[in-house]
Amino acid sequence: MVTGITVGIKVGLLGMGTVGTGTVEILLNPKDRHPLMKELELSRVGVRSMAKPRQFQLPEERLTTDLAAIVNDPSIHIIVEVIGGIEPARSLILQAIANGKHIVTANKALIARHGSEIFDAANRAGVYVLLEAAVGGGIPVVEPLKQSLCANRIMSLIGIINGTTNYILTRMQQEGGDFAHILQDAQRLGYAEADPSADVNGWDAADKISILAALAFGGRIKREEVYCEGIGQITAADISYSDKLGFVIKLLAIARRWGDGEGDQPQLQVQVHPTLVPKSHPLSSVNDVYNAILVEGDPVGEVMFFGRGAGAGPTASAVVADILNIAALLTVERGHQRQSSGYPVLDPLLACTHQEYYALIPITHTKSRFYARFLTHDHPGVIGKLGTCFGNRNVSLESVVQIGLREQCAEIVVVTHGVNEYDFRAALSEIETLNAIHSIPSVLRVL
Amino acid sequence: MVTGITVGIKVGLLGMGTVGTGTVEILLNPKDRHPLMKELELSRVGVRSMAKPRQFQLPEERLTTDLAAIVNDPSIHIIVEVIGGIEPARSLILQAIANGKHIVTANKALIARHGSEIFDAANRAGVYVLLEAAVGGGIPVVEPLKQSLCANRIMSLIGIINGTTNYILTRMQQEGGDFAHILQDAQRLGYAEADPSADVNGWDAADKISILAALAFGGRIKREEVYCEGIGQITAADISYSDKLGFVIKLLAIARRWGDGEGDQPQLQVQVHPTLVPKSHPLSSVNDVYNAILVEGDPVGEVMFFGRGAGAGPTASAVVADILNIAALLTVERGHQRQSSGYPVLDPLLACTHQEYYALIPITHTKSRFYARFLTHDHPGVIGKLGTCFGNRNVSLESVVQIGLREQCAEIVVVTHGVNEYDFRAALSEIETLNAIHSIPSVLRVL
Repeated sequence: MVTGITVGIKVGLLGMGTVGTGTVEILLNPKDRHPLMKELELSRVGVRSMAKPRQFQLPEERLTTDLAAIVNDPSIHIIVEVIGGIEPARSLILQAIANGKHIVTANKALIARHGSEIFDAANRAGVYVLLEAAVGGGIPVVEPLKQSLCANRIMSLIGIINGTTNYILTRMQQEGGDFAHILQDAQRLGYAEADPSADVNGWDAADKISILAALAFGGRIKREEVYCEGIGQITAADISYSDKLGFVIKLLAIARRWGDGEGDQPQLQVQVHPTLVPKSHPLSSVNDVYNAILVEGDPVGEVMFFGRGAGAGPTASAVVADILNIAALLTVERGHQRQSSGYPVLDPLLACTHQEYYALIPITHTKSRFYARFLTHDHPGVIGKLGTCFGNRNVSLESVVQIGLREQCAEIVVVTHGVNEYDFRAALSEIETLNAIHSIPSVLRVL
Repeated sequence: MVTGITVGIKVGLLGMGTVGTGTVEILLNPKDRHPLMKELELSRVGVRSMAKPRQFQLPEERLTTDLAAIVNDPSIHIIVEVIGGIEPARSLILQAIANGKHIVTANKALIARHGSEIFDAANRAGVYVLLEAAVGGGIPVVEPLKQSLCANRIMSLIGIINGTTNYILTRMQQEGGDFAHILQDAQRLGYAEADPSADVNGWDAADKISILAALAFGGRIKREEVYCEGIGQITAADISYSDKLGFVIKLLAIARRWGDGEGDQPQLQVQVHPTLVPKSHPLSSVNDVYNAILVEGDPVGEVMFFGRGAGAGPTASAVVADILNIAALLTVERGHQRQSSGYPVLDPLLACTHQEYYALIPITHTKSRFYARFLTHDHPGVIGKLGTCFGNRNVSLESVVQIGLREQCAEIVVVTHGVNEYDFRAALSEIETLNAIHSIPSVLRVL
């Protein structure tokens, strides 16, 4: 066996921020890690400024501010992109692919929006684009979906895949505090960014679930079709009432296959929204900045992946794993000679093999359980009127609880059974017109 | 790109028990699974008896009771061994390897005991031996350790990896019942075998942690050096007292790296025993037949893999994933021509690259927290005497609680801080000789 063949894989790193620095730290310390690490050479590192003080001393000649020079360097085999954002990341990756280089990226926003362009280019060039670090930090989930669960018909993915919102919701749950105040504190502590909109609006989670759904269901997803609702409207009252009803509120990213499996393409539902999760559910105890992804497949049943979803160390763990996976395949490839046809042959489990788009089911056509909180004038019979409006739309109620008084109104919380969102919305519209109803401060989905 | 290259991988299946039947079910139903499934052909199936009624109708000519004929069939590429036990599984696998066939197996007992012989033969022949199904059923853990966490220095593995014992302990916890009665019920329900010794004595968990430790730490483990204690001695009283102290009792399989990392080989501790797990720990809520493996690595931190650890569907999911991983690599290989040297080149992340044995630290030299229950004659000062004996051996106590009276003795429960097992045992020997001590019914480790 020749597994120890000298491969001498040269890596070019774009970006020396948090993840880039974590990646350098692993590459410079191969001891006790996989022996293949010793075949990796950190060839060039692209930085924004040469002057910035750094945690690691790299030879001056390896550093450059000219990122294009790295992706055009003919000696480099793998480009690691950890600069983030759409441009110049997209152009640099496309140029690297055109130059026949393999790509490792942590850039979920880019892949969720421009994945098709990038994977098409990669397939033409016969190179890999690996992105374990794009979802769930260091938690192995992308590669397990590709390689370990590949024999399954995946039925659903349910994930807590944004650490910032999970941190905020956990603190709201534990302290009874309100959103705005805890967000400020999270920003002060570095758990939320100065502009927190991508996290708190659910956009980051939507990027990630788009990527996971494409992998799990074997088709491409249009990011802009993913329904997305953030946590900005969650109040301490809703958290407290949910708690009393046996739920915690989590920002869930959900992708689900519907239908009887007829036809070649499944019907998919992909959405991100705050959700009441029963306290008995494995995701309910995933707190703070931890992430978890629950996968349901046939025949594996439910499996869950759990860990820290962000941070230099965990994310760099995933980046370097992807580098090693490419290095391993290059080792195999170099043990052979390319056939004269010259077609590069990619590992079909690791390459992107699907090219068709899935049409997503619009949110109004999906089915959910709902939680709704009503402020009502304390008319006798108001619960009866609510029940009638819901009943007229075939919305079956699991519980109706009058909680108490707020702003001189009686506060009523309703939890439904699984209903069509369209019917539920229609019932709500009718309820809003009732004289007995003051307002409907919250409507949330229930897992 | 040529990922759709026709590979036509022929699979020979040894065994049509639970896992074999689950494997056939997936192979015969490729729809909505990975497209590479369509390249697999279930060529021959070895069974014990042709007469037995089966869930699936396979063409008569594909079935045979002559297992040797399958491993000697020159047209077959991959042999799947799911007959279990040591022989004839070992001889069939070695013969298949000698014939240049890749191996997929779910046989933890065989790999834990004869892994070295099998992997050495596989390395010589240039074939893969994959065994995702040997640990944790369908939970991806073997491949993630090899491929997704390969950039980490693994610090510890802690697993609940035997479903039978976890089912029994969960019911003891929930019902307050005793071991013997719940074991009988588990046997009646099919959760425990007629001869439950491999499960309840921890041998099955020891097989599995040996395999995981070898993968995680990159060295071979001698199965007979793994310390192993079963759950037969656990009483309802211990479960109840643990509960009051904030713990649940789980059968844990633990592998841990010790020392400062000097020298080329880490010092390893590998052991299986019932353990008090704090209720706040992620493993404490893994109940019934579920399995979970918590991996701590540098820099990934803690990641956990959770799911059903047994059963036809989950285990077959892992078996077929391994088949597909080999098929994927054969696809890459066939896109190239073997170099004239003729050396087969294996993927260094998937092949077994380590050949040295790790010496395990004997249990007496390890450090643990302990729980001990004492029956004492109600002498004044007995707690003082216990404290003195422990103190003389540098055993620091976290809590000492007098629970009540049992068999006319005062019952005292002690929980220690982390101490050397040797010192703790020495203190216990001294305590046993005290007049005030009636007996020491239980000694358990604490996570």
